[in-house]
Amino acid sequence: MRYGFGVDIGGTTVKIALFDETGNLLDKWEIPTVTEKEGAAILPDTAASIKEYMSAHGLEFRDIIGIGVGVPGPVDDDGVVNECQNLNWGVFNVREALEALLQLPVRVGNDANVAALGECWKGGGSGCANLVMATFGTGVGGGIIIDGKPINGAHGAAGEIGHMVLDAREPEYCNCGKRGCTEQFCSATGVVRLAKRYLAAQDQPSSLRELEKITAKDVFDAANAGDAAAKEILEQVYDYMGQFLGTMCAVIDPEVVVMGGGMSRAGQVLVDGASRYFPKYAFPATKSVRFTLATLGNDAGAVGAFKLVLDALA
Amino acid sequence: MRYGFGVDIGGTTVKIALFDETGNLLDKWEIPTVTEKEGAAILPDTAASIKEYMSAHGLEFRDIIGIGVGVPGPVDDDGVVNECQNLNWGVFNVREALEALLQLPVRVGNDANVAALGECWKGGGSGCANLVMATFGTGVGGGIIIDGKPINGAHGAAGEIGHMVLDAREPEYCNCGKRGCTEQFCSATGVVRLAKRYLAAQDQPSSLRELEKITAKDVFDAANAGDAAAKEILEQVYDYMGQFLGTMCAVIDPEVVVMGGGMSRAGQVLVDGASRYFPKYAFPATKSVRFTLATLGNDAGAVGAFKLVLDALA
Repeated sequence: MRYGFGVDIGGTTVKIALFDETGNLLDKWEIPTVTEKEGAAILPDTAASIKEYMSAHGLEFRDIIGIGVGVPGPVDDDGVVNECQNLNWGVFNVREALEALLQLPVRVGNDANVAALGECWKGGGSGCANLVMATFGTGVGGGIIIDGKPINGAHGAAGEIGHMVLDAREPEYCNCGKRGCTEQFCSATGVVRLAKRYLAAQDQPSSLRELEKITAKDVFDAANAGDAAAKEILEQVYDYMGQFLGTMCAVIDPEVVVMGGGMSRAGQVLVDGASRYFPKYAFPATKSVRFTLATLGNDAGAVGAFKLVLDALA
Repeated sequence: MRYGFGVDIGGTTVKIALFDETGNLLDKWEIPTVTEKEGAAILPDTAASIKEYMSAHGLEFRDIIGIGVGVPGPVDDDGVVNECQNLNWGVFNVREALEALLQLPVRVGNDANVAALGECWKGGGSGCANLVMATFGTGVGGGIIIDGKPINGAHGAAGEIGHMVLDAREPEYCNCGKRGCTEQFCSATGVVRLAKRYLAAQDQPSSLRELEKITAKDVFDAANAGDAAAKEILEQVYDYMGQFLGTMCAVIDPEVVVMGGGMSRAGQVLVDGASRYFPKYAFPATKSVRFTLATLGNDAGAVGAFKLVLDALA
């Protein structure tokens, strides 16, 4: 049996996981991400941690297929990143740099893309070759898998589905500088924004009015408890999600859309809500797409990163 | 030197072209599409026409690499079509059927996808591997090329970009049964619809009011002649096109968008108009995408169909 590592580099921690060659996650741990000095220590720290682990567990270099890495920024097929702001990285070849440190084969992908690949391989989309993973968190992100392979796009921006424009009349600005992005309606931040807007425009009593600061979870909890205003707010969110998913499926026509991110902790209610509005916006031929929750949680990135190296080298 | 044929099967004619192995179009002709009896004669007629041509021009079977075919409906990687309404075709394997008739290798793709592949290989997107072709005609269609290969989607509906929903508040219905589709604003039909709506809502004088029946060409011509109302109408169209292109590029992030179809005969003014509104809706990383007019016209399908066979067999 041979082994490999999947590495998910985030702005706060580097997640490292050991896999056997069939993709079973055998062990995992984290190290802090040191972003000082243009993040120069991140790859050496990661390499040292992997070597230390191998030594402590009697793993030989010849036992290791390779290392897959997910990074939070645009990256091309050769492993060149083009500015990861969360890591203070500029432009350089991550693959070559880590291969030089470890003397092992390395493959590198964008974190959203490798998470999608992970969910496609072992998670909510297991067994399918064409998938979109949509991540509903503070923002809305995404990764697209076509024929089992993540797509990067010409500028590393494929799958930036949070910035599809749903409503050109939206008066407020998105973080990206545009107005009317999916992220402004379908993220945790978007739910809060729509909640505040709704409560300001309506007189309807609501338990949400008693809160000093509203979170997306508060809105889901209030709706679950029967609060009529919270339910109305979520109907707006689901309607936007239906438009988002319908429009996205008209472009990609995936087999499965995996829904992840912090907001997906709301659970099946999110899938059901979006599914109710999807037919209103879906091109008929795409209507049999399956919506499902992500199942790998924080491991998705490491799983997909290891799959990247397995596909390239195994 | 070896040769091959590209075949573009439409509802009225079957376009057939001879190529050398480097993709030079050497000759082309058309035969009528006989759609009676569930279109049973279409492939036999095509095969007979190719054999007749080969015989008349002294082409041997061993000189022929294969036949590429574009069909107006969803088709999977194996060549199975799933109902081509224009041809009265049901579900069957076009590749196997034509291979049996010709004893030559055949590859089959959707007509919009092979046209995109043609423009990617020899047309407006020549030299790039990631491209979207958007066809602005009676409707709006599209084909997506990723890493040099057309994508089909899980239900043959990838690239149905004319049915991305741009405006959920649109009161009228699209042919697909939804409301607010790209096709309702950015097709020739859409231009006429927006023109009528504008003229009904405004008192502004316009040469368009003197016409019994307005066409998209009339609107472009009137705008070119300085008609203020026609100019305003086209600004609305270009604004929708900007949202369409910005939103589509946030999903796919192509290197080039090739603009074709009957409405593209308006010329560079269409590219310039859409380009002016694109930044308003574009995710920043995608802003360097290039917009260009299609250059192959009616040959795009045959060129791309031949490329399909060349990629698979050469």
